[in-house]
Amino acid sequence: MSGGEPLSYRDSGVDQGAARRHTEAIAGMISAGVTGFAGVFELPPGRDPVLLACTDGVGTKLLLALEAGDVSGLGQDLVAMCVNDLATSGARPIAFLDYLAVGRLDPDVTAGVVASIAAACEAVDCPLVGGETAELPGLYAAGHFDLAGFAVGVVERDEMLRPERVRAGDLIVGIASSGLHSNGYSLVRALVAEGRLAVDPALLLAPTRLYVDDVRRLTSARTEVHAAAHITGGGLPENLPRALPAGLRAALDPDAWSIGAAAEAVLATGRVGEDEAWRTFNMGLGMCLVLPERAAESALGILADAAIVGYVEEGAPGVRLIGG
Amino acid sequence: MSGGEPLSYRDSGVDQGAARRHTEAIAGMISAGVTGFAGVFELPPGRDPVLLACTDGVGTKLLLALEAGDVSGLGQDLVAMCVNDLATSGARPIAFLDYLAVGRLDPDVTAGVVASIAAACEAVDCPLVGGETAELPGLYAAGHFDLAGFAVGVVERDEMLRPERVRAGDLIVGIASSGLHSNGYSLVRALVAEGRLAVDPALLLAPTRLYVDDVRRLTSARTEVHAAAHITGGGLPENLPRALPAGLRAALDPDAWSIGAAAEAVLATGRVGEDEAWRTFNMGLGMCLVLPERAAESALGILADAAIVGYVEEGAPGVRLIGG
Repeated sequence: MSGGEPLSYRDSGVDQGAARRHTEAIAGMISAGVTGFAGVFELPPGRDPVLLACTDGVGTKLLLALEAGDVSGLGQDLVAMCVNDLATSGARPIAFLDYLAVGRLDPDVTAGVVASIAAACEAVDCPLVGGETAELPGLYAAGHFDLAGFAVGVVERDEMLRPERVRAGDLIVGIASSGLHSNGYSLVRALVAEGRLAVDPALLLAPTRLYVDDVRRLTSARTEVHAAAHITGGGLPENLPRALPAGLRAALDPDAWSIGAAAEAVLATGRVGEDEAWRTFNMGLGMCLVLPERAAESALGILADAAIVGYVEEGAPGVRLIGG
Repeated sequence: MSGGEPLSYRDSGVDQGAARRHTEAIAGMISAGVTGFAGVFELPPGRDPVLLACTDGVGTKLLLALEAGDVSGLGQDLVAMCVNDLATSGARPIAFLDYLAVGRLDPDVTAGVVASIAAACEAVDCPLVGGETAELPGLYAAGHFDLAGFAVGVVERDEMLRPERVRAGDLIVGIASSGLHSNGYSLVRALVAEGRLAVDPALLLAPTRLYVDDVRRLTSARTEVHAAAHITGGGLPENLPRALPAGLRAALDPDAWSIGAAAEAVLATGRVGEDEAWRTFNMGLGMCLVLPERAAESALGILADAAIVGYVEEGAPGVRLIGG
């Protein structure tokens, strides 16, 4: 040793004791077998399964939640952002993992976040098979953290929803969002900072709706669905075309659904143009299904908070607003 | 509109144009089929496959790389941290996804990071099936970013490496690390900040070695391996016991291998105690295999940079140092 007290890993900002307390607190939340190094999960029996995977975060909704002192909904936001993407293919989630990065590990906070992730996984019957909680002093400010989620899903190849199934004349069924979900929050925070969006934070922090069971109920009832779109960043104009093949576009009637209280509050500030709002927020529809007209009645009988919001027509990729 | 220029998503710090340029730049790097919302991958033919998944980041090595102006190795670090965990079960990686979060999207930097991830995936023959690049103004400082990786692997159930296979008397084969890999960098950065670790940054930033092919070559040659440990945070004392069943511990002879130039440089500062170093760094061994004595000669003939470093004996979980 030369020069002063020896340096420990703890001195450098990493608290392995807190890491152990965090690990102990979340141990019971992992719902699958694990090796010492990875989570183990099973492929359910099937004829010809296709696997899908996706990853997402919750964006700057996280900062709004930290500012409001309520991060309890972020776990559902994280799980929803991933499993809703899987649901657009008709896939059921079979494994979820989370990455939680903090500036300084506070087991009370981090264990609460993981618990909210575990609860959302349970709600969609998806095992939480593992995760990583990383302490990164110097990258995150005190009290800050970031979250990423990863989901694996499975669907039978011949039952996979896909744009190629869609035909001109198909109807578009929109399922209501629970609010702004997890997109557009940098704009929301700018409005809050200006003092123009003085609403109950709970309205802005409502957790993202999970659409896995909606799609599962349709599949179980053998209701014909051709394709689906999860409405996230870029809004309906960017996400709905992803469910459509080349040569077809969506025609939407904005009078056919309600954009919801949170988007109303954003528009009421008068600070966000209509076009910007459509390209930033889900505008009341978190998931859109594309299905043949003959299946619409069955679908609406099965889904809650759903309506026929438009139809598919020939045209360059995009969304055309009709009526109004 | 009321009061001033309308607010756009771009004004709030999110640059959708940069996001599109980034997306275009990385489009060719995704090596698998994709839906509009998720990556698609196939389960290779098998008798009774078990799926595994894990997630990890690169820790504060990222900050050291940013400070040194060379982030080119971080993609391999990220992929290695995940696929090496899979390799401890004998699993081959079949899908990788990355989460890249930035304060401000600079397509030149982010596309380079994703390219380095794609190259490492190719090196272990694992499809990069998707990813998320998130712009989070307010969470990350200018020029900062964070990275998380997610890997899915598959192994035949009856070929899975596991602690239950290990017996007292088994040998421990250590495979050399390429440096400090991706752990202990908060301590390294503290030493650099003190001016005590004035070495070529390249020594500290050497990318984490990928061990997938080492394990694959043993499996292909039908060399008997019982279990394996990826030596990451917590070092040999915390990771090696994860490859052993209750009632057995590892006896290691530190004279049997070289700890490598990077760990030597850390110890030469005189600022880090031996015990702290063993619990923080991999001390020259990035992967340890546990195998029966009869398989050792075959293993050493197949592996590069490997040596018999110890054996398994009865005792409470842990690592005992011998010889010296």
